[in-house]
Amino acid sequence: MSEIKRVVLAYSGGLDTSVIAKWLETERGLEVVTFTADLGQGEEIEPAREKARAMGIPDKHIYIEDVREEFVRDYVFPMFRANARYEGDYLLGTSIARPLISKRLVEIAHETGADAIAHGATGKGNDQVRFELSAYALDPDIKVIAPWREWDLTSRTALIAWAEAHQIAVPKDKRGEAPFSTDANLLHTSSEGKVLEDPWEETPEYVFSRTVSPLEAPDEPEYIEIGFEKGDGVSLNGKAMSPATLLTELNELGRKHGIGRLDLVENRFVGMKSRGMYETPGGTIYAIAHRGIEQVTLDRGAAHLKDELMPRYAELIYNGFWFSPEREMLQAAIDLSQEKVNGTVRIMLYKGAAHLVGRKSPNSLYSEAHVTFEDDAGAYDQQDAEGFIKLNALRLRLLAARDRKR
Amino acid sequence: MSEIKRVVLAYSGGLDTSVIAKWLETERGLEVVTFTADLGQGEEIEPAREKARAMGIPDKHIYIEDVREEFVRDYVFPMFRANARYEGDYLLGTSIARPLISKRLVEIAHETGADAIAHGATGKGNDQVRFELSAYALDPDIKVIAPWREWDLTSRTALIAWAEAHQIAVPKDKRGEAPFSTDANLLHTSSEGKVLEDPWEETPEYVFSRTVSPLEAPDEPEYIEIGFEKGDGVSLNGKAMSPATLLTELNELGRKHGIGRLDLVENRFVGMKSRGMYETPGGTIYAIAHRGIEQVTLDRGAAHLKDELMPRYAELIYNGFWFSPEREMLQAAIDLSQEKVNGTVRIMLYKGAAHLVGRKSPNSLYSEAHVTFEDDAGAYDQQDAEGFIKLNALRLRLLAARDRKR
Amino acid sequence: MSEIKRVVLAYSGGLDTSVIAKWLETERGLEVVTFTADLGQGEEIEPAREKARAMGIPDKHIYIEDVREEFVRDYVFPMFRANARYEGDYLLGTSIARPLISKRLVEIAHETGADAIAHGATGKGNDQVRFELSAYALDPDIKVIAPWREWDLTSRTALIAWAEAHQIAVPKDKRGEAPFSTDANLLHTSSEGKVLEDPWEETPEYVFSRTVSPLEAPDEPEYIEIGFEKGDGVSLNGKAMSPATLLTELNELGRKHGIGRLDLVENRFVGMKSRGMYETPGGTIYAIAHRGIEQVTLDRGAAHLKDELMPRYAELIYNGFWFSPEREMLQAAIDLSQEKVNGTVRIMLYKGAAHLVGRKSPNSLYSEAHVTFEDDAGAYDQQDAEGFIKLNALRLRLLAARDRKR
Amino acid sequence: MSEIKRVVLAYSGGLDTSVIAKWLETERGLEVVTFTADLGQGEEIEPAREKARAMGIPDKHIYIEDVREEFVRDYVFPMFRANARYEGDYLLGTSIARPLISKRLVEIAHETGADAIAHGATGKGNDQVRFELSAYALDPDIKVIAPWREWDLTSRTALIAWAEAHQIAVPKDKRGEAPFSTDANLLHTSSEGKVLEDPWEETPEYVFSRTVSPLEAPDEPEYIEIGFEKGDGVSLNGKAMSPATLLTELNELGRKHGIGRLDLVENRFVGMKSRGMYETPGGTIYAIAHRGIEQVTLDRGAAHLKDELMPRYAELIYNGFWFSPEREMLQAAIDLSQEKVNGTVRIMLYKGAAHLVGRKSPNSLYSEAHVTFEDDAGAYDQQDAEGFIKLNALRLRLLAARDRKR
Repeated sequence: MSEIKRVVLAYSGGLDTSVIAKWLETERGLEVVTFTADLGQGEEIEPAREKARAMGIPDKHIYIEDVREEFVRDYVFPMFRANARYEGDYLLGTSIARPLISKRLVEIAHETGADAIAHGATGKGNDQVRFELSAYALDPDIKVIAPWREWDLTSRTALIAWAEAHQIAVPKDKRGEAPFSTDANLLHTSSEGKVLEDPWEETPEYVFSRTVSPLEAPDEPEYIEIGFEKGDGVSLNGKAMSPATLLTELNELGRKHGIGRLDLVENRFVGMKSRGMYETPGGTIYAIAHRGIEQVTLDRGAAHLKDELMPRYAELIYNGFWFSPEREMLQAAIDLSQEKVNGTVRIMLYKGAAHLVGRKSPNSLYSEAHVTFEDDAGAYDQQDAEGFIKLNALRLRLLAARDRKR
Repeated sequence: MSEIKRVVLAYSGGLDTSVIAKWLETERGLEVVTFTADLGQGEEIEPAREKARAMGIPDKHIYIEDVREEFVRDYVFPMFRANARYEGDYLLGTSIARPLISKRLVEIAHETGADAIAHGATGKGNDQVRFELSAYALDPDIKVIAPWREWDLTSRTALIAWAEAHQIAVPKDKRGEAPFSTDANLLHTSSEGKVLEDPWEETPEYVFSRTVSPLEAPDEPEYIEIGFEKGDGVSLNGKAMSPATLLTELNELGRKHGIGRLDLVENRFVGMKSRGMYETPGGTIYAIAHRGIEQVTLDRGAAHLKDELMPRYAELIYNGFWFSPEREMLQAAIDLSQEKVNGTVRIMLYKGAAHLVGRKSPNSLYSEAHVTFEDDAGAYDQQDAEGFIKLNALRLRLLAARDRKR
Repeated sequence: MSEIKRVVLAYSGGLDTSVIAKWLETERGLEVVTFTADLGQGEEIEPAREKARAMGIPDKHIYIEDVREEFVRDYVFPMFRANARYEGDYLLGTSIARPLISKRLVEIAHETGADAIAHGATGKGNDQVRFELSAYALDPDIKVIAPWREWDLTSRTALIAWAEAHQIAVPKDKRGEAPFSTDANLLHTSSEGKVLEDPWEETPEYVFSRTVSPLEAPDEPEYIEIGFEKGDGVSLNGKAMSPATLLTELNELGRKHGIGRLDLVENRFVGMKSRGMYETPGGTIYAIAHRGIEQVTLDRGAAHLKDELMPRYAELIYNGFWFSPEREMLQAAIDLSQEKVNGTVRIMLYKGAAHLVGRKSPNSLYSEAHVTFEDDAGAYDQQDAEGFIKLNALRLRLLAARDRKR
Repeated sequence: MSEIKRVVLAYSGGLDTSVIAKWLETERGLEVVTFTADLGQGEEIEPAREKARAMGIPDKHIYIEDVREEFVRDYVFPMFRANARYEGDYLLGTSIARPLISKRLVEIAHETGADAIAHGATGKGNDQVRFELSAYALDPDIKVIAPWREWDLTSRTALIAWAEAHQIAVPKDKRGEAPFSTDANLLHTSSEGKVLEDPWEETPEYVFSRTVSPLEAPDEPEYIEIGFEKGDGVSLNGKAMSPATLLTELNELGRKHGIGRLDLVENRFVGMKSRGMYETPGGTIYAIAHRGIEQVTLDRGAAHLKDELMPRYAELIYNGFWFSPEREMLQAAIDLSQEKVNGTVRIMLYKGAAHLVGRKSPNSLYSEAHVTFEDDAGAYDQQDAEGFIKLNALRLRLLAARDRKR
């Protein structure tokens, strides 16, 4: 890869990616372009500008962007249309942020004439895969540099020594080993490693940063209403909101009521199991609400097909195949189903859980006339059931007649 | 169906099935055999004996059986091995009880020389389908009588008048219209109809019979441990238990902590949507525990295949196809995966929710050596990731090279 | 259904539907509107006009239409995009014609103020289901009359006697029992019943009407080239053609070379098995060609997803759910995959079989540079394979280490 | 991997694997154990013994085995029970042989105290993946050496020079470049590369080794009967045969009639497309026969589930995951379905194609009584169809009533 001249780095402004920036320059002899995105991780991104400047990066090569609305509108909400949960539970908070970052990295590479992108993900995790598959899918000729797979700064001590030797400021709280590792964006915060590595040990309370403990949550339940149009959330308690604003508000509600903690041992794409603690306060509420509005607006055929496709869809996102034909095909099917997913869902928040308690829709398929225990005025002819059952049974009867075995 | 002489009735001892018994005798001229099962519905079944005798049914034609262990061991647990949830949430409490009842009805028909079975399910619901498909699958020549689809006693008033005209005792509390309808067994209680028919209205607290309100649940969390062998629960807090005993104990824990309420609008097999309130206290806890132990003992390939097969499997049970080749094929695949699903799961119960907080297994596939952020002593070579990503990306790159479009 | 006044009948002009028309008028007291479609069944449709007039139907209520282009363009080709085959082999020739007929029946009902539609399918087959599901999906209030499920003209003798008693001309060749029953359209001819009812007996040669026997086919192979754009056939041997023209030409080629005979025992939606002989000369060639062009233009992810979705898609069409949300969702996914399915396929026709022998595309994903056994100039790094295999193997190794069993 | 002392090599006796054996010894300093299997590739395996001896390998380290029966019984037949076809057409002839070879390599490694296995597959293909995934799944600690990914003998000239420099006999016909590459076993012969690399060019006749050209096949059709028990072939024309014998006989029949040629552009697991020509004479006939016997013996539910699972199952085998939990789970489901797949199928072989013309079974589910166009004596009540259709339509009608759009 000797032909690389310039590289776009996913740069947080933190110690690790600062070391990477310097390492790319000094050890690899590259010009570095930095890209710092506000994905709602809850940290200021402007300080990254000064840090990049301090490393001698020219202003035109420092990209700092607020992509929160794009993130929620074009990635999070489409994913929630599918009711996606990886391995039954994980709402894919980390997975869904990576394609957007890669897309911007590649676009900036094109704008700045860079040949490569670089990221700070390790060689053991899923994120390297997600970053790189996305980048390759968007530009087949892009080069990727993953310093953690290459360098020898594999101990904390070595990394800090290298930083100091290269005039990178090392904050005091970064000198020791962190007791766990985190990733955050508007959808979730994940924590893993170190104190979380024994899956039998309960997660210590200090690991949580996005939610109060259910035990500390308010003693009074809170009711909220979320409005949907075409399968996407558009309002909270009757107030219209942009996607990122809605998720931000739901995060605050979830935080307050201790909602959205998930302790999971999951299967990484690279082949090992890992244990993570996820906090997805707003997303957990939103996911319940979305299913709630689908309950009254989706036809059974559409709903069941979605349920059958979902595990595959979630796996694709988890594995990093957002920009793949098969994810886009599934998305096309899912999106078609959402045309009439309109209405309002009522949720009760209380002590660590969100409970769906009501849903209504101008496009409801629920027919009280049909389901009622009262006189249905001929809406439904109970005699039809006999033929329905008889013909559904026919093949089973032919089978039983043949086998006479049970 | 003029050839029917004797019929086996699924008899609860309640007013409705008592009317059915008498109706079968007087209007259809049949000898009635009654089958009353203790499935854990929480009512005494012995009173059904006296009621049956009072209608002149000979003792040899009165079957009263405790089938709780069989129910949990042969139906509930196999279903939970699949992590089955219908439409994302429903734990199939009613659906899973019907095949067992049908199986006994058919067996008793064979024992007593009866030609037919009868049940008290209406023509609008799923239960008629489940009863009848199961029966036909077990005996292709059996006849089925479903009085609710045939008779004209469709109003409460008419039913009660008919009962009184035929010397059937009508309890005072059955004279008025019940505000909703219920079904119960060891796994759950379902409620639907009447006051629940508007899916926007929150379920009134008086509907719940199996759980305290989360708001009234204890202020202290409670930790429990559930032990698993080959995918089935075998112990609670270290104490070995039979299947039904374990589920009974978990029900008591769930009831106390307000766990397992589900407000659902679902799609019936007969084509309409209905709104139900389910209480599945022990099952809800058990389901979380089972996924927890699978997290450390199932290989990814097995886990993901299970997740993809699950919606189909759940639909089959919901629709009444328990005794079908395809359900049995899926069960064979699922059961094979459970060989090493052994270990213990730790759960925190609190205010309406069960939180998985730890899991351990003598057959764990979780490898701290591989996943650790520390030195892994060569267990995992980070260089492998590059080739892994490159070849996963190859087809995407060829595609991007062709399309150059994004 | 006493409120029905006017009914639109799917009318072939043949004896059976003429009897139905008269029966609807005389026995049910209805005004009859006739719809006769040229779907490529190979019979003149104009004679139906005179026959309808002879029964006193006014000209404005006689609909006679050539729908061949619509049939192939909007039904057959979309279905072939999915490579749909029911139960592994059946190209769904009958199934795919029914939705179009129902759609026109419903539209004509709306145009003529009719309340109902009627068809001549029996109560044992799939076609009644397909006609009726389509109609109900397009107009929830439409009524359906299926005389074969209602009347008592169940023997041939009775039907002919009734026809003669009602002044309906009975052609000589319809007086006896036909040795089998057929359905035909531009895609196929199906034959079933009577002489075909024993699935062990070889189909007599006289049953075939659309193909010569492979044994009688030319001794010289014939090479053809089919051009595709966006997944649909657009040319034959370099000559641009409309959908129906292309299929017609392929039918002639298939007929000549004895291609497209299929002897199948299939599972009907109504629960029984039936044995059919299908002749799909052009469709068989087209299906092979479509797969051929996909081989070089579809990405693996798209191709495999299509293959996994196909059985479900084919089942939906077979069962009559063309106009269902889930079929439309699958179609959306499939259609998205066809954007670049452009190019030309070369086929050899010979003695009953079509052999794919070449394919080329301006959008080919086939890369000789990558696959070559020669020096690939760095297109592919064989070292990548090691990491690819190692990480794919990791979970299997962890499993083997746990189990040490084989 | 410096700790390796002894390696078991998949040894054909040919030039390439002879070079590998010598290279392992001289360049890597290893003791080589050879394993040569008769998988029905049509070459003598005994000559490999002399060649191995000539390289100084002691007799106890020369393994030569006829594994044809095991191959067909434990790999080919189980796969055909699934009707497995990769990408719609490929009968997986190469894929299915690799797991067996790997299994023996690992077992011999254990018997001989070897630490590693080696194979002669290149770094571009699927076979390396299949060999290695199988080996790792069977022994997590086994080492794998793949010389083609490591050495620099990448041109034919270099390889031959190295062979001659190391006293390895180079047959005259191996001196030039072969015009294509082949792999053969009892199930098939595959050819790829060089003259086959342009997917638009028709395969030259000289590539074919297992079948006569359809154009040269006999002018008379030949009828055969294949008997099945529990889903596996057991006889030909009434004569009982072992699995390998049956397949051998079918191969001869297929060869004679030019059956089983497949020209395919397929998607390799490593990410590129390749074009192959497969000849699977007996397997092609067998696959048609197996579907034929399933048509009358499998229930629809089982058959459709099998069809839906098949693409995944085939992909697993193609990708090398024979020894994986998910393949074994699918196999368990499939095998359960085959319990009553007994009977006889009649096939006509003619000029390049095999035509199913009849099937019969003592366990047939085909009911002439139900399907007949004649009086069915009450076996089927056509009235049942109305209710069946009505309830299947209900959801679609509710949807149409909501949308009123088409």
